[in-house]
Amino acid sequence: MKQSELFYKTLKEAPRETKTLSNILLTRAGFIDQVGAGLYAFLPLGFKVLKKIEDIIRQEMLNIGGQEILMPALGPKKNWQKTGRWESFDTLFKLEEYALAPTHEEIISPLAKKVVLSYKDLPFYLFQIQTKFRNELRVKSGLLRTREFLMKDLYSFHKDEKELNQYYEKVARAYFKIFKRCGVKSYKTLASGGTFSKYSHEYQVLTEAGEDVLYLCSRCDFAINQEVKKDFEKCPKCDCSEFYKEKGVEVGNIFKLGDKYSLPFELKFRNKNGKEKPVIMGCYGIGLPRLMAAIVEHNHDEKGIVWPEEVAPFAVHLLKIKNQKAKSKNQADKIYHSLQKSGTEVLYDDREDVSPGEKFTEADLIGIPARLVVSEKTLKSNCLEVKKRAKKESKLVKINSLC
Amino acid sequence: MKQSELFYKTLKEAPRETKTLSNILLTRAGFIDQVGAGLYAFLPLGFKVLKKIEDIIRQEMLNIGGQEILMPALGPKKNWQKTGRWESFDTLFKLEEYALAPTHEEIISPLAKKVVLSYKDLPFYLFQIQTKFRNELRVKSGLLRTREFLMKDLYSFHKDEKELNQYYEKVARAYFKIFKRCGVKSYKTLASGGTFSKYSHEYQVLTEAGEDVLYLCSRCDFAINQEVKKDFEKCPKCDCSEFYKEKGVEVGNIFKLGDKYSLPFELKFRNKNGKEKPVIMGCYGIGLPRLMAAIVEHNHDEKGIVWPEEVAPFAVHLLKIKNQKAKSKNQADKIYHSLQKSGTEVLYDDREDVSPGEKFTEADLIGIPARLVVSEKTLKSNCLEVKKRAKKESKLVKINSLC
Repeated sequence: MKQSELFYKTLKEAPRETKTLSNILLTRAGFIDQVGAGLYAFLPLGFKVLKKIEDIIRQEMLNIGGQEILMPALGPKKNWQKTGRWESFDTLFKLEEYALAPTHEEIISPLAKKVVLSYKDLPFYLFQIQTKFRNELRVKSGLLRTREFLMKDLYSFHKDEKELNQYYEKVARAYFKIFKRCGVKSYKTLASGGTFSKYSHEYQVLTEAGEDVLYLCSRCDFAINQEVKKDFEKCPKCDCSEFYKEKGVEVGNIFKLGDKYSLPFELKFRNKNGKEKPVIMGCYGIGLPRLMAAIVEHNHDEKGIVWPEEVAPFAVHLLKIKNQKAKSKNQADKIYHSLQKSGTEVLYDDREDVSPGEKFTEADLIGIPARLVVSEKTLKSNCLEVKKRAKKESKLVKINSLC
Repeated sequence: MKQSELFYKTLKEAPRETKTLSNILLTRAGFIDQVGAGLYAFLPLGFKVLKKIEDIIRQEMLNIGGQEILMPALGPKKNWQKTGRWESFDTLFKLEEYALAPTHEEIISPLAKKVVLSYKDLPFYLFQIQTKFRNELRVKSGLLRTREFLMKDLYSFHKDEKELNQYYEKVARAYFKIFKRCGVKSYKTLASGGTFSKYSHEYQVLTEAGEDVLYLCSRCDFAINQEVKKDFEKCPKCDCSEFYKEKGVEVGNIFKLGDKYSLPFELKFRNKNGKEKPVIMGCYGIGLPRLMAAIVEHNHDEKGIVWPEEVAPFAVHLLKIKNQKAKSKNQADKIYHSLQKSGTEVLYDDREDVSPGEKFTEADLIGIPARLVVSEKTLKSNCLEVKKRAKKESKLVKINSLC
């Protein structure tokens, strides 16, 4: 894509009310734009990153047998009354006869009921990547907490606890893979099960911008949320009693729901002996915009964002530096077209009326992993320098090898 | 995908309240499920079709220079008050301080204002594929009219009417391409411009289930919506005065907005002479679920759906017919795996406890374009029959060539 045609605008300063680093960088670099309190638009650069995160999550969900569906955000009030969450879910957006779903147990449980008859229909795993709504009070941290956000929610349906436990571990491994591919180190953290069960697990990414307080074992990889820390004097994994405190942001969570939703919706099956049993459920969420913010919290330097390769909006940033001779333009155009032809995603800064300094500053802010600069110097040497900012390394390649 | 693992259930009879053919077939074949009045869940089969439609639309939008973004559904009340649509848009879902956007002019106009300064920033084209909300009164026709639906909305921004007109024609051509690829014949139909302008164009697909009444020219391809028919005694294209009447469903529409939204949001630019001018806008929509229903209205026979190839949930339906010998299972498994390996999207009816008759009836209902049947007979002949229902043709292929 030519940068002269890209819909974006970088800002020297972020809006004053913006304090969170990821919000400052994503706003300044032209990835997102605030529409209202807790409401953001993803501009072309931001949308590309969001889509890459979505694709990674989709792949890993399909890998563990997930089948993709799409449920509506509007759900009938009566479903929410049945579980009591019409009253008890504090951030629920209510319209007269509907709730805007903050999560989809109230929709998927009656849906599953239409298909499940016997143990032969179990297990199955349904997921969607769909917009959630929550009427959050505090929304000052950009994408870390918003009133509307894309979420991957997976629900699993089982004949018993044992089967649920096995699948739960499978999802846990898939989650580590997802976060690793997205370029963040995540901690599987023991947390409160809320209204579902005693405990659940959160995937936390350490950052000062996080709202959660975690205790990490000094010896092993065990992590626990402050809210349930009092339950454990020692690390249940290695028996160590030393913990250190960190702040984190929850990018995903996994819950064992058990029969909490199958009971009110009478989601039952007949087992091998013909006896009726409640279906045992699990649910597993990842908030995509929050993950995007966590990626930025973890991947930046003093000049701007440094995108991990798998989620970068483009693989290569090609900069044409203004030159007296027309030759440099032709050369840069040529390299752009041959990169495109080879299937490389390239952002081409082809602008004529922008100084080299401005171009470099913007490129540093936007943070595309590899950079190619076409200038008079490169033309003379017939070589191009490929710079990788994340690794602070660069190498020379022959221009002929690119065209 | 193995059919034994697919989350679906076919129905012999559609729910009683369902009268529209596409709704009956999509529900009976397990593509969609009704969650509430005007609210549908897309089950795995239905989601696959929706995704293919989405991909076709995305490709054609990128082809005409569209840049993809994602805006929130929740929009601040004050934006809607500014255009007067807080009061005048009759199907608007209102929450206290927000509207759930039925279309996004109120969000995109102030967004564009942040980037546009001069004529050099124009033109540009932004689109999203995003969920819309409309509090429709009549919602009895399945996906043809719903309260929540995925929509592609494209907005174009221009320096003058001439430039808008050129792009408008470009979009018009892209729309024909999209509907053709989706397997429906569409009529570009002159219609009321609503509150935007005198006229707009709708893309209509002829069907008895449609709510619109159209007049088609007997001689050329001119079509006009009943609502503006009185303006034209003769066909403005070929001067013919004979029209015939049809019912249609509007799968897309294109509008010249002019300065209707740039004025209230003060979306202006400086022209070459440094003079301030309002940006001239166009908007272009396609409702994805409605298009999916229109595809079914147009592509079915007495036994069920007959999906056009580009939007079919799978390319091949492989049926294993029960056999005394274990050999047929192995053979079918082998063919399944080699088809998968070759990148073919295949649904494999591997179920052991279902009769051949039931398998065929279900396959006819689901409507995957090509069918392969592995039975004792095929094993003996070492040949497989590839049936294409749409063309009512079949051919024999050697099993060896598949494995």
